[in-house]
Amino acid sequence: MLVQKYKDMLSAKSVIRQLSEFATARGQEIGYENVFDYSLGNPSVPVPQDLTFTTIYYVTTDTQATHGYSPSLGITSVREEVAKSLSARFGLPYRKEHIFMTAGAAGALAHAFRLVTEPGDEVLTFAPFFPEYHPYVDLTGAVLKVVPPDTETFQINVEKFREMLTERVMAVLINTPNNPSGVVYSEETLQRLGDILREKSEEFGHDIYLISDEPYREIVFDGETAPCPSRFYDNTIMCYSFSKALSLPGERIGYLAVNPNCRDAELMVNMCGQISRGIGHNCPASLFQLVTAQMLNQTADLSVYETNRNILYKELTDLGFTCVKPGGTFYIFPKALEEDAKVFCEKALKYDLILVPGDTFGAPGYFRMAYCIDTEKVERSLEALRKFVKTEYR
Amino acid sequence: MLVQKYKDMLSAKSVIRQLSEFATARGQEIGYENVFDYSLGNPSVPVPQDLTFTTIYYVTTDTQATHGYSPSLGITSVREEVAKSLSARFGLPYRKEHIFMTAGAAGALAHAFRLVTEPGDEVLTFAPFFPEYHPYVDLTGAVLKVVPPDTETFQINVEKFREMLTERVMAVLINTPNNPSGVVYSEETLQRLGDILREKSEEFGHDIYLISDEPYREIVFDGETAPCPSRFYDNTIMCYSFSKALSLPGERIGYLAVNPNCRDAELMVNMCGQISRGIGHNCPASLFQLVTAQMLNQTADLSVYETNRNILYKELTDLGFTCVKPGGTFYIFPKALEEDAKVFCEKALKYDLILVPGDTFGAPGYFRMAYCIDTEKVERSLEALRKFVKTEYR
Repeated sequence: MLVQKYKDMLSAKSVIRQLSEFATARGQEIGYENVFDYSLGNPSVPVPQDLTFTTIYYVTTDTQATHGYSPSLGITSVREEVAKSLSARFGLPYRKEHIFMTAGAAGALAHAFRLVTEPGDEVLTFAPFFPEYHPYVDLTGAVLKVVPPDTETFQINVEKFREMLTERVMAVLINTPNNPSGVVYSEETLQRLGDILREKSEEFGHDIYLISDEPYREIVFDGETAPCPSRFYDNTIMCYSFSKALSLPGERIGYLAVNPNCRDAELMVNMCGQISRGIGHNCPASLFQLVTAQMLNQTADLSVYETNRNILYKELTDLGFTCVKPGGTFYIFPKALEEDAKVFCEKALKYDLILVPGDTFGAPGYFRMAYCIDTEKVERSLEALRKFVKTEYR
Repeated sequence: MLVQKYKDMLSAKSVIRQLSEFATARGQEIGYENVFDYSLGNPSVPVPQDLTFTTIYYVTTDTQATHGYSPSLGITSVREEVAKSLSARFGLPYRKEHIFMTAGAAGALAHAFRLVTEPGDEVLTFAPFFPEYHPYVDLTGAVLKVVPPDTETFQINVEKFREMLTERVMAVLINTPNNPSGVVYSEETLQRLGDILREKSEEFGHDIYLISDEPYREIVFDGETAPCPSRFYDNTIMCYSFSKALSLPGERIGYLAVNPNCRDAELMVNMCGQISRGIGHNCPASLFQLVTAQMLNQTADLSVYETNRNILYKELTDLGFTCVKPGGTFYIFPKALEEDAKVFCEKALKYDLILVPGDTFGAPGYFRMAYCIDTEKVERSLEALRKFVKTEYR
């Protein structure tokens, strides 16, 4: 018999997917260039040219080594390069023994949850949050609980967090720079988070792990860098994807890095190799392990995202929106102009503006715009945005 | 706290891995060319040149499309090509709705088990079998049970199968052409298997699914082709990998194909997209989806495996080994010359012959040779084999 829980999931259609499908259908009517599709977080810039050259190098040089089996924890030289790069950037003594290569951040998270939670255990995350965290966690048998947002700053809501951080919580999941708010967690936030986790681990007599989902780490604006959560808490499992920084989300390449100061860090990486056997992971593609290891100091040209952020933030605030200024990513998360953001986003469709209501991210009343689109299109969308606001809300 | 079951798995070291490590260490002493390493099933021939050209084409043409996100069931055009190819080859009416792209056969199997089994359900497989089936199944919560081998033919042991096929069995897992025996299941075997499954599904009042693991489908000797299990039983889930036929095991690319005649076939493929969210699968690499879709009618030059099979089968039978002649793959599975194959393989190490005892495959008393190595080396190994047998067993 077919397993019911997966059947049931099919009826719950993703709001983002529905909006994206609407955008595609509308594009067929009026030309996709005329649909201001802010629904999907899909990188809009090409991979760096060096990445293409490196790929060609590997597929034309010793093809058996390039396409051969990777050891179950990842290609050794690749793990070494990743460790070296992390150590240099974040000042923690990473070695290859702390690195496990994964199929994107989703692959890394799938291992992280299984490392430190048993069915019935709780995982806390902070709204607004990436909605896929629900199936990611819930389908392991653990339970995801969501701390309500601090809507002033979209940093963490410390008071509510303390309330919800009970003995049943085995892991806390964060995402900075954040999808959907675009906010970068400050050093102060990470310090408080670390302090609370240390205090509560002590109190409960068991480790609480911090699972840090960092696919947007390289997309930070105003010349800043994102503070590294691992620096503030030893028991941190970093989950990284090259998807956004190198613009290759389809190639499913990333890694899990256990903080070298985490007790049992090496054991945990070895355990990941066992977890893989149960979930059919068996390493990301060898080619992309080899290629990305040569690209650790490069990114695609990410400047378009900052340009778009600047244009949209200015226009939105000029139009009277309440909006926390994104410090990175390619998302912005303003307050809707009426209480029900679903109604607000529904109305926006009339102006061919595809906005995603914040309900889906655990923050009703807000909406997300994914501005990983051409700047020229962002500029053309402003007229529609103005017309929408002035017609519907003046 | 770290999850105990994965910790415990670390102490159970794989015999194949240990032998392979021994071979590497010994190679450092005497030169790897002098170690007759028959331990690992790693393709030994290069990818087809066309595959390299196709890869270069895709990475230099519209890189955003090439490296972009794949839809959750796989790239639509790729699924169409796979369906067309399967229909043409096997005469079943596959459409893209029956195809789900996966990270190799392991990825396909991970979805198949979760589609049709709940924790506590039983999955039957037939010895000799690929030892990874144990963690693949057991870590889902289902229970793998192994039907003892028919050592005369290494087809299936029908009598024992009937005994073990109780109401608790929700799926039967086969692997033809078979690792480790090299045997191709005959039409007669598949017909009997189908008949029994139909009879018992009826009797128990629930469907029993056939999960068919077919990574060696293209490696068949003597101008034969492997009978397609899906043709003999409607409720079949085919799990395929391009690893062996195209020599790219590291790239983790394959698919799951539900028999179009299976009730709910399309629903099952859609369910796979949901299962993915829980196990961090999120599609195989886009690039390799696109590339393999252009290579459906090609393979690497697989003739070396048949050459090696011929040499080894002749030598082994000349030396008095009892041995079922492999019809495909790159494995042969003779009977050891003493009861305990572990002792036999241990003694072989003195002659720098790396053989794997059959215990690991559920067939004690036998041993596996993986002859995916250069023919020149196979030929050089014969002297060692003769010396081993004559010294230890005459």
